[in-house]
Amino acid sequence: MANIPGIPKGTRDFSPEILAKRNYIFDTIKEVFKKFAYKQLETPAIENLSTLTGKYGEEGDKLLFKILNSGNFLKNVSDTELHERNTTKMAHLVSEKGLRYDLTVPFARYVVQHQNEITFPFKRFQIQPVWRADRPQKGRYREFYQCDADIIGSNSLINELEIVQMIDEVFTKLNLKVTIKINNRKLLAGIAERIGHPDKLIDLTVAIDKLDKIGHEKVYEELRQSGFSEDGINLLEPILNFGGSFDDQMQCIEKFLGETDTGVTGIDEIQKLFTYIDLFKFNNNIQLDLTLARGLNYYTGAIFEVVSDEVQIGSICGGGRYDDLTGVFGLKDVSGVGISFGADRIYDVSENLNRFPEDVKTNVKLMFANFGEKEEKYCLHVLKNLRDSGISAEIYPESSKMKKQMKYANSNNIPFVAIAGENEMKENKFTLKNMQTGDQQLVTEEEMIILLS
Amino acid sequence: MANIPGIPKGTRDFSPEILAKRNYIFDTIKEVFKKFAYKQLETPAIENLSTLTGKYGEEGDKLLFKILNSGNFLKNVSDTELHERNTTKMAHLVSEKGLRYDLTVPFARYVVQHQNEITFPFKRFQIQPVWRADRPQKGRYREFYQCDADIIGSNSLINELEIVQMIDEVFTKLNLKVTIKINNRKLLAGIAERIGHPDKLIDLTVAIDKLDKIGHEKVYEELRQSGFSEDGINLLEPILNFGGSFDDQMQCIEKFLGETDTGVTGIDEIQKLFTYIDLFKFNNNIQLDLTLARGLNYYTGAIFEVVSDEVQIGSICGGGRYDDLTGVFGLKDVSGVGISFGADRIYDVSENLNRFPEDVKTNVKLMFANFGEKEEKYCLHVLKNLRDSGISAEIYPESSKMKKQMKYANSNNIPFVAIAGENEMKENKFTLKNMQTGDQQLVTEEEMIILLS
Repeated sequence: MANIPGIPKGTRDFSPEILAKRNYIFDTIKEVFKKFAYKQLETPAIENLSTLTGKYGEEGDKLLFKILNSGNFLKNVSDTELHERNTTKMAHLVSEKGLRYDLTVPFARYVVQHQNEITFPFKRFQIQPVWRADRPQKGRYREFYQCDADIIGSNSLINELEIVQMIDEVFTKLNLKVTIKINNRKLLAGIAERIGHPDKLIDLTVAIDKLDKIGHEKVYEELRQSGFSEDGINLLEPILNFGGSFDDQMQCIEKFLGETDTGVTGIDEIQKLFTYIDLFKFNNNIQLDLTLARGLNYYTGAIFEVVSDEVQIGSICGGGRYDDLTGVFGLKDVSGVGISFGADRIYDVSENLNRFPEDVKTNVKLMFANFGEKEEKYCLHVLKNLRDSGISAEIYPESSKMKKQMKYANSNNIPFVAIAGENEMKENKFTLKNMQTGDQQLVTEEEMIILLS
Repeated sequence: MANIPGIPKGTRDFSPEILAKRNYIFDTIKEVFKKFAYKQLETPAIENLSTLTGKYGEEGDKLLFKILNSGNFLKNVSDTELHERNTTKMAHLVSEKGLRYDLTVPFARYVVQHQNEITFPFKRFQIQPVWRADRPQKGRYREFYQCDADIIGSNSLINELEIVQMIDEVFTKLNLKVTIKINNRKLLAGIAERIGHPDKLIDLTVAIDKLDKIGHEKVYEELRQSGFSEDGINLLEPILNFGGSFDDQMQCIEKFLGETDTGVTGIDEIQKLFTYIDLFKFNNNIQLDLTLARGLNYYTGAIFEVVSDEVQIGSICGGGRYDDLTGVFGLKDVSGVGISFGADRIYDVSENLNRFPEDVKTNVKLMFANFGEKEEKYCLHVLKNLRDSGISAEIYPESSKMKKQMKYANSNNIPFVAIAGENEMKENKFTLKNMQTGDQQLVTEEEMIILLS
């Protein structure tokens, strides 16, 4: 046998059974996005490197998949440059296009490029693969899907409310229990100010973002190393041990933040959002979490993160409000708020808890067994009628051995097999076999259609 | 203003309105594939170059998008090789991965890789983008979608029948009139044999494939240049002027082919397929077309091609039977038959004829105008109830000027706007404005839900 071909590390084939489950997740998210009037956008997989480079930090630049220029790709490389073997520099001479690294930068590029055609506020969602030349490991892929929804050009907190509603609805539909954690970057900024280190907001958020993983002591240690004063760290304690009802929490944080400007705006935003939230009933927990910072040095208002109540797997959805989506492309003051669902992790949670609906993998409802030419003809007409009634069905294409045909039905999770031999044909009926129970019954075409609809 | 960013030549952004129409086409095709029990597969965009290279001819190899290796991509290139500047050779040293060029080779790779998990016959469909470093021109893109369905591991002509049924159903659902042309490569081989040039089958098919475009005389000229004898060309004439009823045609071709082995098998296959076809009513024309050869040096049995009856745009769907899908990866005797829908051309035909359903672009049924805090609260609850009833709706997130809000509704093709001021709120009602006619009516929440459902 020749070498079995394979696929690159970090990429995946999605076999029909797995894909059906993935599509169930995507379709659920899509349906909710659409009901909330988000409109789907697709951008090309290939972007100019000038669009992508410098947007994800130095580390991100290294993880961009670059496409080799066609034809004589060395034509812009001088002999000296060739000799230098400086591949970082040379990469840009031999490659001018790259693969999409996330959906945010292409969205920003799209908005700037089409600013005159877009009526703001613009609500878009996008479900497409992205590529990162990361070291592959469990749960980390080089090609994976992102599912983003953003509304830009509106500062209203209704948008934040609707994001919480969308999250709640998606996970309710997926039959998963989650906690939706909410914070506001302005509260964190107020805290940094209050403990005397307004300039160290990033260090502060990076450290307390790790609270769940490394615990209080190590967070304090990290803060000390970042140059926070012992007084400041002591002040922080009540905030990190934050708990109780929403009102208790707000009292505590109001007292703590006092009169800091940013803090007061943050409190106001959080109060308002929770006032909106209180108007509705939700199926999942919603809580204010001051330790929620998310790595991104990016959000300026609300911050969201969703974790499963049932499986420990980290964040399965996250997002927040940002002030400046498109500034890097020269268009100022485009702010918005967005959310991203982590399809791979949601898949793992659903699989782990066995929460995919039974019929996700049984799209095909019936197979006609094939006994030969005459029987075939008898079945083909009924097969057409079944399909015309919207029922997914098939006929085994050859009159192979019964065992082989049944094996096909089984391994394709087809719940019913229709059998028509001399006797059935005489009576204008079919023997319908339930593949799960083994039960057989004699039915007419009409009965079969009703049974399978 | 800074430079407006753009996208690479030959790639496209699909704005929400265009994407909604594209998805309508994809969803229609998908629904039919699924009803015929084809199962969806997805393979990664990135494949090993060893999988792709050598599968599409020399020209195809040049059109593969190659991905630059990460890190020090020159590490396998010697100084001598660097100096040589032989980029064809060097490409394989600096790049080991490439972008999918079509869906067939990845499918073949998948089948070989997973042969032990697959129960044959295997019916798969795949709708994913492919990439070709072609020179972009009108209607030719560097990134475009293919929509393929194939069944492998079955020689039954039922599969050919079902492909014709699927084509008929897809175009019926899309409200487009087409002609489905059918031929069989074995008939062409029989003809080549009969006119004394069994070795020149490819030249023959390449030439007669152009009949529609360049006419009889130029085809004869091309055949002469390929070394066909004048006698042979004369013999060919009745076949190229082929017409009349199916039975007339079969008589003509049977007489012509006489006893050639391949020809007889071809006649048998065509007869059998048309016997199947005659069992059913079709909405579109189905015809035997002996001049149908398709460029591909690939099909061994049935050949399909679909053209619009209403717009001249060339083939909008095509396919056929092949003997050896996976031989190139070391797995012999995997034959099958498949079909590929040309989504971009189908889009152009639908757009040209204005055949997209009216509601494709009006996913959002209603917008609530926003007059401020009190009114907002009044609307938000009803909005939730609408969405819970499955209606896609939204509230303008800010209490901006009415004109601005109406402009948003208009440019998003939202058919209804609900207005609630003091008066409406007192009566527990809404003024519902029809954005097309300008008509307004006072309705309750329940009336609104019924009206929009």
